[in-house]
Amino acid sequence: MPEPASHDTIRAVQWQGDRLRLLDQRRLPAEVAWIECTDAGAVRRAIVDLVVRGAPAIGIAAAWGVVLAARAGEDLPAALAVLRAARPTAVNLMWALDRMQARIEAGADAAALEHEAQAIQDEDLAANRRMGVLGAALIEPGCGVLTHCNTGSLATAGYGTALGVIRAGFEQGCIARVFAGETRPWLQGARLTLWELLRDGIPARLIADAAAAHLMRSGQVQWVIIGADRIAANGDVANKIGSYSLAIAARHHGVKFMVVAPSSSVDMATASGDDIEIEMRDPDELLSIGGVRTAAAGAEAWNPVFDVTPAGLVDVIVTERGVVTHPDARGMRALFGGA
Amino acid sequence: MPEPASHDTIRAVQWQGDRLRLLDQRRLPAEVAWIECTDAGAVRRAIVDLVVRGAPAIGIAAAWGVVLAARAGEDLPAALAVLRAARPTAVNLMWALDRMQARIEAGADAAALEHEAQAIQDEDLAANRRMGVLGAALIEPGCGVLTHCNTGSLATAGYGTALGVIRAGFEQGCIARVFAGETRPWLQGARLTLWELLRDGIPARLIADAAAAHLMRSGQVQWVIIGADRIAANGDVANKIGSYSLAIAARHHGVKFMVVAPSSSVDMATASGDDIEIEMRDPDELLSIGGVRTAAAGAEAWNPVFDVTPAGLVDVIVTERGVVTHPDARGMRALFGGA
Repeated sequence: MPEPASHDTIRAVQWQGDRLRLLDQRRLPAEVAWIECTDAGAVRRAIVDLVVRGAPAIGIAAAWGVVLAARAGEDLPAALAVLRAARPTAVNLMWALDRMQARIEAGADAAALEHEAQAIQDEDLAANRRMGVLGAALIEPGCGVLTHCNTGSLATAGYGTALGVIRAGFEQGCIARVFAGETRPWLQGARLTLWELLRDGIPARLIADAAAAHLMRSGQVQWVIIGADRIAANGDVANKIGSYSLAIAARHHGVKFMVVAPSSSVDMATASGDDIEIEMRDPDELLSIGGVRTAAAGAEAWNPVFDVTPAGLVDVIVTERGVVTHPDARGMRALFGGA
Repeated sequence: MPEPASHDTIRAVQWQGDRLRLLDQRRLPAEVAWIECTDAGAVRRAIVDLVVRGAPAIGIAAAWGVVLAARAGEDLPAALAVLRAARPTAVNLMWALDRMQARIEAGADAAALEHEAQAIQDEDLAANRRMGVLGAALIEPGCGVLTHCNTGSLATAGYGTALGVIRAGFEQGCIARVFAGETRPWLQGARLTLWELLRDGIPARLIADAAAAHLMRSGQVQWVIIGADRIAANGDVANKIGSYSLAIAARHHGVKFMVVAPSSSVDMATASGDDIEIEMRDPDELLSIGGVRTAAAGAEAWNPVFDVTPAGLVDVIVTERGVVTHPDARGMRALFGGA
């Protein structure tokens, strides 16, 4: 295990020896409430309902779901299938379940599967710490940063991907200002990122997603730093809806654009972003807020919750294996091998 | 008065002979409620509190505020000053009050001021109808359109600016699809534009503001059509926060960008957008939604509610006096004269 880091106190996915404890991210910041899962179906529901969200955290939770299925003597291929179908865009879910499936096929028992799930979780935390070092090294002193969605401890085993770089950069003093986009429709920025950063002593300010270009024009940010739900073999990045808008605006203003994701988010079997399935969610997520209808009765909405940023708009991809600057198929292949 | 137009039934600012009736836009779409103003102070509060909003509607309401002051025998210079300070960015407020002030200085009585306010309101409606014709003529058949904020009957004397062009284009069949950005933090798109378009029989779909670039990339929209709170002498456009992001994304995708505003929104005395005061509003507008706190206690926000789109990103400005393509200082001067 890596040594403890500062500005890092939150652990949202906790294995309890016989059950999985998840910080209920739907209820933050109003309440710090936990749910407990004792079978794979409950883990699947927690992923679908966004109790647990964030590409790495989804993968880790699903791995523990397999452990729960094994301990209960459930049919493991069925449990894998149920978990695999929970959400389509983040590849970490498939990656973690592939690892668990390989152990199952090699004859692993419940104890060995528990060991594998713990390894997935521990490796994620270590990867985040490593990416924090690699990413922060790219940032000049005194920079302002804009981030989107939540990519912190809540979205991972701990420390975070983009937010891990922000933690490291803040600690080293190269990051002087942090802005967080509120991230409609689920408000992960407003509800989760501000809570997490406040709690860990990193001052940050919320902006409307639509204010990002105006913020860049004001000169207050030099970097946009985001996570990824899947990175294709050519360096295209699928991430939370709005990331693509930020990338276009960043390029327009000469603001640098950094994507931070563990190698478990890299999908060398997917040639480009065009081949990534973009999850469409319920229009009611836009037509209502907090259960209160805001739009007129009968109104319709178009609610894709991810988008694809072409590699050409990305200045650097930071993974725990290393950094790909000006990413393209060649640079990705150099770090991650052939598809 | 122009003849009635189709897809146009809403009038949000109504003079009642002795009082001003305003559709309370804070309560739409849940309730169609009205407030009545019987003095200039009440009109000012209605503008500050966003009971009435939209650059042209603010100007019209303020003109009626002067009439109320005159009828009550109030001190008119004081009433003008109170109204003038209500909001800083939209120039229509200053323009309408300048017109009323000129009549006051020419010795107009309350009846003459009432006539002037009615003229301001009638001219705005006629300007919108004219802009509808001019703007729709620029749109190729079968286009999809994205709009932002609310620029319709609710924001004007009726028919609307950008939404007037959309009404006209829909009626003529050249606009096939309408998307509306929800427009955080006040959700004018979700609450007002969808309500207005549904009520007038124009199908539209809501998107998260952050989904605009992804929508453009999908090929579903060929035009972004927005209003303006102020247009500077060089063609720079101050409008609702998020307009600038849309303009950058539109240019990136080859989507055309149209600004629709009456000449009362043109401020030839302001050289460029850099000289326009951008209103900053309460951070709580972002930290809470519908009175319910969404962000963590102690969190901060940066809440500019307008931004400036440089003229170079605007394909065409449509006014009732004519159209300025590829706007710059020369093109603006040709239509609006010297400062």
